[in-house]
Amino acid sequence: MIEFLGKNFLLDNTSAQRLYHDIAAKTPIIDYHCHINAGEIFENKQFENIADAWLGGDHYKWRLMRAAGVSEHLITGDISGFDKFKAFAEVLPYCIGNPVYHWAHLELQRFFDIHTPLTKKTSEQIWKQTSEQLKNDETLRVRGIIERMKVEVIITTDDPVDDLADHIKLAADDSFKTKVLPGWRPDAALRIENDRFIEYLGKLADVSGNPIKDLDSLKSALKSRMEFFDKNGCKACDHGLLRLAYAPSPEEEVNSILQKRLDGESISTTEAEKYLYHMMCYLGREYARFGWVMELHVGVGRNMNSNMFDKLGADTGFDCIDPYPAVSGIGNLLDELNKTDELPKTLIFSINPSDNAAINTLSGCFQTQSIKGKVQQGSAWWFNDTYYGMKTQIESFAEGGVLGNFIGMLTDSRSFMSYTRHEYFRRILCNTLGGWVDSGKYPNDAFYLRNIVEDICYNNAKEFFGL
Amino acid sequence: MIEFLGKNFLLDNTSAQRLYHDIAAKTPIIDYHCHINAGEIFENKQFENIADAWLGGDHYKWRLMRAAGVSEHLITGDISGFDKFKAFAEVLPYCIGNPVYHWAHLELQRFFDIHTPLTKKTSEQIWKQTSEQLKNDETLRVRGIIERMKVEVIITTDDPVDDLADHIKLAADDSFKTKVLPGWRPDAALRIENDRFIEYLGKLADVSGNPIKDLDSLKSALKSRMEFFDKNGCKACDHGLLRLAYAPSPEEEVNSILQKRLDGESISTTEAEKYLYHMMCYLGREYARFGWVMELHVGVGRNMNSNMFDKLGADTGFDCIDPYPAVSGIGNLLDELNKTDELPKTLIFSINPSDNAAINTLSGCFQTQSIKGKVQQGSAWWFNDTYYGMKTQIESFAEGGVLGNFIGMLTDSRSFMSYTRHEYFRRILCNTLGGWVDSGKYPNDAFYLRNIVEDICYNNAKEFFGL
Amino acid sequence: MIEFLGKNFLLDNTSAQRLYHDIAAKTPIIDYHCHINAGEIFENKQFENIADAWLGGDHYKWRLMRAAGVSEHLITGDISGFDKFKAFAEVLPYCIGNPVYHWAHLELQRFFDIHTPLTKKTSEQIWKQTSEQLKNDETLRVRGIIERMKVEVIITTDDPVDDLADHIKLAADDSFKTKVLPGWRPDAALRIENDRFIEYLGKLADVSGNPIKDLDSLKSALKSRMEFFDKNGCKACDHGLLRLAYAPSPEEEVNSILQKRLDGESISTTEAEKYLYHMMCYLGREYARFGWVMELHVGVGRNMNSNMFDKLGADTGFDCIDPYPAVSGIGNLLDELNKTDELPKTLIFSINPSDNAAINTLSGCFQTQSIKGKVQQGSAWWFNDTYYGMKTQIESFAEGGVLGNFIGMLTDSRSFMSYTRHEYFRRILCNTLGGWVDSGKYPNDAFYLRNIVEDICYNNAKEFFGL
Repeated sequence: MIEFLGKNFLLDNTSAQRLYHDIAAKTPIIDYHCHINAGEIFENKQFENIADAWLGGDHYKWRLMRAAGVSEHLITGDISGFDKFKAFAEVLPYCIGNPVYHWAHLELQRFFDIHTPLTKKTSEQIWKQTSEQLKNDETLRVRGIIERMKVEVIITTDDPVDDLADHIKLAADDSFKTKVLPGWRPDAALRIENDRFIEYLGKLADVSGNPIKDLDSLKSALKSRMEFFDKNGCKACDHGLLRLAYAPSPEEEVNSILQKRLDGESISTTEAEKYLYHMMCYLGREYARFGWVMELHVGVGRNMNSNMFDKLGADTGFDCIDPYPAVSGIGNLLDELNKTDELPKTLIFSINPSDNAAINTLSGCFQTQSIKGKVQQGSAWWFNDTYYGMKTQIESFAEGGVLGNFIGMLTDSRSFMSYTRHEYFRRILCNTLGGWVDSGKYPNDAFYLRNIVEDICYNNAKEFFGL
Repeated sequence: MIEFLGKNFLLDNTSAQRLYHDIAAKTPIIDYHCHINAGEIFENKQFENIADAWLGGDHYKWRLMRAAGVSEHLITGDISGFDKFKAFAEVLPYCIGNPVYHWAHLELQRFFDIHTPLTKKTSEQIWKQTSEQLKNDETLRVRGIIERMKVEVIITTDDPVDDLADHIKLAADDSFKTKVLPGWRPDAALRIENDRFIEYLGKLADVSGNPIKDLDSLKSALKSRMEFFDKNGCKACDHGLLRLAYAPSPEEEVNSILQKRLDGESISTTEAEKYLYHMMCYLGREYARFGWVMELHVGVGRNMNSNMFDKLGADTGFDCIDPYPAVSGIGNLLDELNKTDELPKTLIFSINPSDNAAINTLSGCFQTQSIKGKVQQGSAWWFNDTYYGMKTQIESFAEGGVLGNFIGMLTDSRSFMSYTRHEYFRRILCNTLGGWVDSGKYPNDAFYLRNIVEDICYNNAKEFFGL
Repeated sequence: MIEFLGKNFLLDNTSAQRLYHDIAAKTPIIDYHCHINAGEIFENKQFENIADAWLGGDHYKWRLMRAAGVSEHLITGDISGFDKFKAFAEVLPYCIGNPVYHWAHLELQRFFDIHTPLTKKTSEQIWKQTSEQLKNDETLRVRGIIERMKVEVIITTDDPVDDLADHIKLAADDSFKTKVLPGWRPDAALRIENDRFIEYLGKLADVSGNPIKDLDSLKSALKSRMEFFDKNGCKACDHGLLRLAYAPSPEEEVNSILQKRLDGESISTTEAEKYLYHMMCYLGREYARFGWVMELHVGVGRNMNSNMFDKLGADTGFDCIDPYPAVSGIGNLLDELNKTDELPKTLIFSINPSDNAAINTLSGCFQTQSIKGKVQQGSAWWFNDTYYGMKTQIESFAEGGVLGNFIGMLTDSRSFMSYTRHEYFRRILCNTLGGWVDSGKYPNDAFYLRNIVEDICYNNAKEFFGL
């Protein structure tokens, strides 16, 4: 029996153990996509207690609590952190096999040196000990966490209208070595069907300093913001695409669709699709010019529970996998951009694990400008950021392409402590590679194995994003 | 080499062996969904021979025989049970890896203490021995089988027009301890496009005692039958939904669709979708009021072979997986019911294993009334009621939610001997859990492991159905 | 640690080792579907060097090189074979987990007795050694390769307009024992929407000797070519169906669609679907009469990269999985043919691994004429011709039907050396079967295990194709 979360956690063969401990565990982290708050880094936020660090906004944990029958009041209500933590601790042991079970205990081990499983019984003691540590240990403040996890680069997710004030202050702060770069996420400008689209264009007009009255002026506004982001170190952009249809249409037609919307008229689904497709083509070409990496996240059904959306808003744990063949439209977009050699480096993420093979084979069709892994599947994400999810994604990537090109893990997280997910990924990666070596599927070649592990954990992302 | 179907069948790690033998094997069975005949329980049916028990209506076995080239005459023709049994025995050894191979041998072991593999050669001897035993052993009659398998509760599948006479007699029979409860299955009232819909409404009008001339009177009839079922212990209802579209429409419109159909006019696909969606919303609200569990079975392509449907009718082995994104419409239905806090406890079953992750994430969006696992994926079903199918469903449930909430296995069977499928499931469950313990993915905590195993095998279903 | 690609490569249990070495390794090969050139067999082509054998047209290898950032010039450009080979050797070690990694090394071992992994460093020496061997060793010419791999039958893929001259010459050549039979692939006659459809009908009219002016004369032309193929030993036909819709329509309507197209008018998507469905029904009935096996390949997105299609044409590495529920239409076609007892033996291949279960359950619905495995899933194909792809397909076939019926592996290859893929498949097959025996899931019955292995590797295909 292997020790619970012990030294060789997830490493069930000797090659895996060697690859992980000698190589993977030692490489720094490049977190090329996350949702953490640059301001909290600048201010070097201190957590009051573990509820503050864990339960303030983590919808992964909220979903588990709700599924276990915990009342909403104990999850997002106005009660003490300790009560929330205790409610979570009661649920956790029943989450056997869930990644949150592993993440929570990895975080207890790595940040607090606590090796006792969290249960109802141990919750009070763990609360006390962690509260003490969070109060007294400087390395448990945000900057300390980032430094002890050896995070070299963080790319946040930012709206085009953001002034990037915290990024700018961080760049000027020599005392903090980790690069915190902005990431461009223009979703609000792309969802023409949304109630708040017009309001958003108003903000965009304000920050860019020119009124938006047609397609040209919208593009100018976005362009000026892209230039601003680029000047402040932006290397990546992300798009949460619900459904992307192949909907090419003449520029004038898209302009009149936008005009209609600006005039307060309603827009059909087809018109919204045409607008989105057109804008993605426009933006893709700009990204290619800036040398940015284009990230496409597809397959999510958002805000499925209207009741809870009305009460808590978005990103509170009511999204799911939309089993729609979301990959199809992506192929058309990539081809459109590639026709004129304006396809940027691209990462495709699908939340539906049944899409793995389709994404990997699609990626293989656009590797045409001598860039290593130019178009590739992103790592297993959100609902798939799990043991089997990651394992399957790695195997599918390997069988469908060149695994040595893979740029590896991102946290996609809202929580500073979740850098341990990189450890989780690296253990699974090394276990897969080591398993192939030990079972005679790959030669025990120290040189190439070291290259492959280091590249996937660190070098590839560094090169891909031009860091 | 582990002994074929030996004591540790499917239990390849020591924790699994302990969890299964010490805990899972000892818990009673709650079979919350099956297709067995309450009348045969009341009469305490005796099987003439093993062909009578195995081959009378089991389309799983028929499909294998057909696939192996056995002529239809030897499968459903008018020949002796022994000839059918011998034909089956000849095919069985080639069904390596098929669950029927395991089920058949589990049944031979558990009911007849026969440990010889069934082949052409052994078929005659096994025929004789089992015939002898079926004739002489009282515990091999239907009630005996149920008792020796420790089945506490059986929920059958019944039509709203059924008089539940056998259920009523069984409830009154103190000599038999197992509860046999009716399950409500109103499919015939929901498939407005079916040829026999009008005829069915006639029957429904008769049993409920009021004519059905519009939507209101249809609902009244159904309501009175629900009250009758509820009075007779009904706790669950099931729906075989082929495709459920999001098709809300005003009550008056649905009423006129029904009127058209009652007037003998033809109905469009869209109209049928509107009727179905409306009725599912109506029924769901009633289920919530009755406190029933709503089961939704989706993704089946039925009666694919018109020729054989004409000859043998439905449920004879000519259905398949319909690779249609069936889960989408379910989300809309759940949200609709949830808006007014009228969402009943719900189990979602998809026959398409590629839907596992989507169902688990969708379920997580509707856990909002402090009920443990209020909406959850049902266990691997029909074509997925297999080793890999169950394993994958358990892993997906664990990674997407709280496995400790899972209400576990049902037989969904037409055969009394198939209670061994609970053993099959429990072995796979324990092997999965034990494997996580032995590989350091979960602490070796006897208290929580016992709770989890007992809950999934027994307690959760008991609580969920209010038994 | 198991030796890399050693004797027990992929055989991790003792039963597997016995089944493979004693049985599977000894059976001849029937390659019932491939794309090799009959002319090169007749001429007994000699390869100049390993680049000639490996990199001339193998888009699997090209894709890996492109994905690793190799410039197109080094892949398909006009440079030396050695430069191409070196570029490939540099990339290969990073393709850990990819089947090409295994295939390439299996070919080096089996054909050249080279046991050194191919890397940048070893590439020059391997180039020299293989060049020497290819020059001097008669058994490395095409016929030698086929003979040393014990290939008994090869079924090629041929266009209806092909004169089969090489097949005819090979049939007459007594010095060569392997049967090389033509395979009928009428795709060009079925894609009415293609630019070159009219031109193709012109060719068809020429070879069949009668003008094509309507549906009847088209069918006559195809019929006469089928008769010609049949006379020359054809046993199988293949169809690369992109999307097959259920689109029945009267013969006269299909005739006018064809007339429109012949008159140079444009055709709608719906009209093209009606034409395709009608023609597949017509052809299927003819296949049944000829006793041919109908192969249906679905789920491929073709020529996704327009740029590269313009430069290099089709089949150059720019296809992908189309995540479209392609299986649905197949069911309607099979049912249509079956209604009148005119369904031929059928193999269904989907490139989307998420379709495995759907295909296996659909197949089970049409096993109705006492033919063993009459309709069945073909082996894992193209992008799934991988370790996990094959393993999963075998498991899904076993759980969804009678694995003992499976007709097993085909190469689907354009390369003579790829007969080692049969070894790859057989090792995975034996490992799966042996694993079931060693873990107590199947009895250690030498008789049935031998039958199953021999049948899947050889006997079933021989019987299925009537060889």
